[in-house]
Amino acid sequence: MQAYNALERRFARLAALGHALSILSWDRSVMMPHASNAGRSDTLAELEVMAHELLVDPVVAGDLAQAEAAPPSDPWQAANLAEMRRAHRRATAVPAALVAALSHATARCEMTWRAARPQGDFALIEAELTEVVARTREAAIAKGEALGLAPYDALLDDFQPGLQRAHIEPIFATLSEALRPRLERILERQDVPLRPAGPFPAERQREIAINLMGRLGFDFNHGRLDESAHPFCGGNPDDIRMTTRWDEADVVTGLMAVLHETGHALYETGLPFDWRQQPVGRSGGMALHESQSLLIEMQACRSPAFVAFLGPQLRAAFGDDPALTDANLERVYHHVHPGLIRVDADEVTYPLHIILRYRLEQALIDGTLRVADLPEAWNAQMSELLGVTPPNDGVGCLQDIHWPAGAFGYFPSYSLGALLAAQFYEAAHVALPELDADLMEGNVEKLVDWLRANIHSRARSVPFDQLVTEATGAPLGIDAFVRHVNRRYPTS
Amino acid sequence: MQAYNALERRFARLAALGHALSILSWDRSVMMPHASNAGRSDTLAELEVMAHELLVDPVVAGDLAQAEAAPPSDPWQAANLAEMRRAHRRATAVPAALVAALSHATARCEMTWRAARPQGDFALIEAELTEVVARTREAAIAKGEALGLAPYDALLDDFQPGLQRAHIEPIFATLSEALRPRLERILERQDVPLRPAGPFPAERQREIAINLMGRLGFDFNHGRLDESAHPFCGGNPDDIRMTTRWDEADVVTGLMAVLHETGHALYETGLPFDWRQQPVGRSGGMALHESQSLLIEMQACRSPAFVAFLGPQLRAAFGDDPALTDANLERVYHHVHPGLIRVDADEVTYPLHIILRYRLEQALIDGTLRVADLPEAWNAQMSELLGVTPPNDGVGCLQDIHWPAGAFGYFPSYSLGALLAAQFYEAAHVALPELDADLMEGNVEKLVDWLRANIHSRARSVPFDQLVTEATGAPLGIDAFVRHVNRRYPTS
Repeated sequence: MQAYNALERRFARLAALGHALSILSWDRSVMMPHASNAGRSDTLAELEVMAHELLVDPVVAGDLAQAEAAPPSDPWQAANLAEMRRAHRRATAVPAALVAALSHATARCEMTWRAARPQGDFALIEAELTEVVARTREAAIAKGEALGLAPYDALLDDFQPGLQRAHIEPIFATLSEALRPRLERILERQDVPLRPAGPFPAERQREIAINLMGRLGFDFNHGRLDESAHPFCGGNPDDIRMTTRWDEADVVTGLMAVLHETGHALYETGLPFDWRQQPVGRSGGMALHESQSLLIEMQACRSPAFVAFLGPQLRAAFGDDPALTDANLERVYHHVHPGLIRVDADEVTYPLHIILRYRLEQALIDGTLRVADLPEAWNAQMSELLGVTPPNDGVGCLQDIHWPAGAFGYFPSYSLGALLAAQFYEAAHVALPELDADLMEGNVEKLVDWLRANIHSRARSVPFDQLVTEATGAPLGIDAFVRHVNRRYPTS
Repeated sequence: MQAYNALERRFARLAALGHALSILSWDRSVMMPHASNAGRSDTLAELEVMAHELLVDPVVAGDLAQAEAAPPSDPWQAANLAEMRRAHRRATAVPAALVAALSHATARCEMTWRAARPQGDFALIEAELTEVVARTREAAIAKGEALGLAPYDALLDDFQPGLQRAHIEPIFATLSEALRPRLERILERQDVPLRPAGPFPAERQREIAINLMGRLGFDFNHGRLDESAHPFCGGNPDDIRMTTRWDEADVVTGLMAVLHETGHALYETGLPFDWRQQPVGRSGGMALHESQSLLIEMQACRSPAFVAFLGPQLRAAFGDDPALTDANLERVYHHVHPGLIRVDADEVTYPLHIILRYRLEQALIDGTLRVADLPEAWNAQMSELLGVTPPNDGVGCLQDIHWPAGAFGYFPSYSLGALLAAQFYEAAHVALPELDADLMEGNVEKLVDWLRANIHSRARSVPFDQLVTEATGAPLGIDAFVRHVNRRYPTS
């Protein structure tokens, strides 16, 4: 066990660097004065290099081989050792020069993107994005070779271990087939909601949010809620840093972002405390993470049962506006609108935004789509999948930071998370027949307990497929999500 | 230059760790939920160990020897190399086992101190403080041997390089002789101020503070002002994190703390940007640092000239209270009161609090005073120097965190800083004959420029003595401070 113990010690040090990086990143988004960004970026980069050096240190290969020769009998330790091997394999797969080239390419491209998006000018970013795609492709090939995966699968594996193109392809194909005809009928059938007009004082919205977070089990002795340009859940399991953005003209977005991020937070805080410094103790991947945020926001808190609990609070805080009746709030929370912007999309059209990106990023990485042809391909897909065409690239293929930042293979997690959320929620509903009645009282404790037992507490101790199958009785699929859409969005 | 460049690279990495530590420490005091402290402490300790390992890495000794064999001709690089050698010598002087023992002893003792102080119960802490003193003494001997210094000098050198007992002893001896008879006469002569009654809304106090910080040259694009239990100036030169504490019943303390901490902030931001990642680019030591905060707070902003600028603002914000006239504000800002608590002391009695600590900590480190006898010795000194006797140890020898935290040799910096502040201010006044007229307009730009040119921009490029002599025409002494006291606190 000496080699294994040395590895645990090394990964605890990596966890300390991770802790520092997570708080420093939160601080950058929430607290840091803007002009201090250059120095902060240097520091973050230096800590990341230190973490990388800890992983690729030649000592690690020897310790891994020695530990694997007499593997630990404890299943968590064994799973931890496998995660260590995985981390080492990924870190050593890409030559240092390519890591540096990719890092510089994405830093430049991301900076240019910030200027190009508001101008809607793809030409500004084309050369730099071409460079990012080229380097990402090289890295994907190198990682794929190390992991025995195809290049795009190696990228997917970065974000959700255990999910590959072979799983996703049929899922997305049947999902788009299921959604597109339904979408038209939903649009014909749905009632247009009254828009709540406000103003909705930020302080009041915040009070409601804090109260809901508390009900959901967020522990303010181990976390905070602040504001940032884009809501996120950062920090670490012992010290969660959640953010949202308050808009006094909008009572929906800020609060729903809080519920969404609270789902992420609950996952992090539900991870096993004793393993918090080890790779096996981390969350199971981005699709699983997104499943937890969407389960809380979309499945539980936008349900009619929970709206019956939330509606009276909104009316007490903001007055008896006819736009704040339970019935109208449901219409607001369930309004479907095929639009141009992913982050503004409802849960029915959202997967179509993702399928578009999934198709295009594969083509970019495979080399069958040139970056120069991206705007045209994007607009064609938008038209085919959603029936809308961007008037400029700023609201088209420039809308997301992911590709300029080099995050290819990330997008599928969003919609796989939505599918998983529906599947988990259905299973929880079976296990907890009184769930709707509980939600009407704002009581989510049993639901969170179910998530803790079936998902959070397992961390990475079992593979993705096993976790999903043991929790829901079936591997990841689209059926629960389609049933959810049919239930919530009637077409007749 | 290869070895020197490798050292610069290593110290840049140390600076990144320092940046992370400073922001994480600020976050702990200002933002972090209380219950997350254990995890944060682990992370801070791990990063500190990493920094220590970077310094004691055997490669460093070789690089230093090689760089010193062909030293850089650039004087800043040469001074930087000397600072690197100093850092390496200090880091390698103390055996790892003693570093760990001292760290554990102070962590335990500090924790116990938090309980012992409010109870005023010295017995609670005696054993643990005895352990801290014993380990500190061992470390002081080890450092002294490595640096060619006596043990207590080695501790002083931790906080203010270049200052030793031989310098301080005559300074403190003449200072206490000068102050004690004057103190009695000041107390007889001074007018008792009216206490401003308030309430003084925190938001209004904050607005005034922000405005004053801006006038002093604090750049809010590179820093923030927040609240914490004890005011401090943290962060790093590119991203200053200042704090204060607002009390709506007190218009003096919070604002004066802001002016004090702004003095620290100006020093940090005035350090040479190009050397920010290197040891030569750091501030010159704690006495110099305290001189900058006291110069801004005590010398400049509590001067009658500046009160003529500040008074109208306070009256505009809080009404024409007779306690807010310029004349009464001066009486408030210059009120002398021999009390029990150092941090509440005025500038006349403050040095006596320090001289007491200086005498006792030397005796503890020399072994001529047993920890068990500390309360009695403390009370005897209080009676002799200040004419007051603590009713319990909570407001006596338990009042400060420094000794339980292992910071022996720090206290002198406060009063040496006060002496330096007076000496620098006098020199600045000679160079800027219009200084009082400027202060009456709230114009401190030329004063800050003088500090930048003569102190801040020099960082550690010259030794302490040289810096002081070049800036003021004389080495550190008590004359300017005594003249200042005579001017501000008339005795006839």
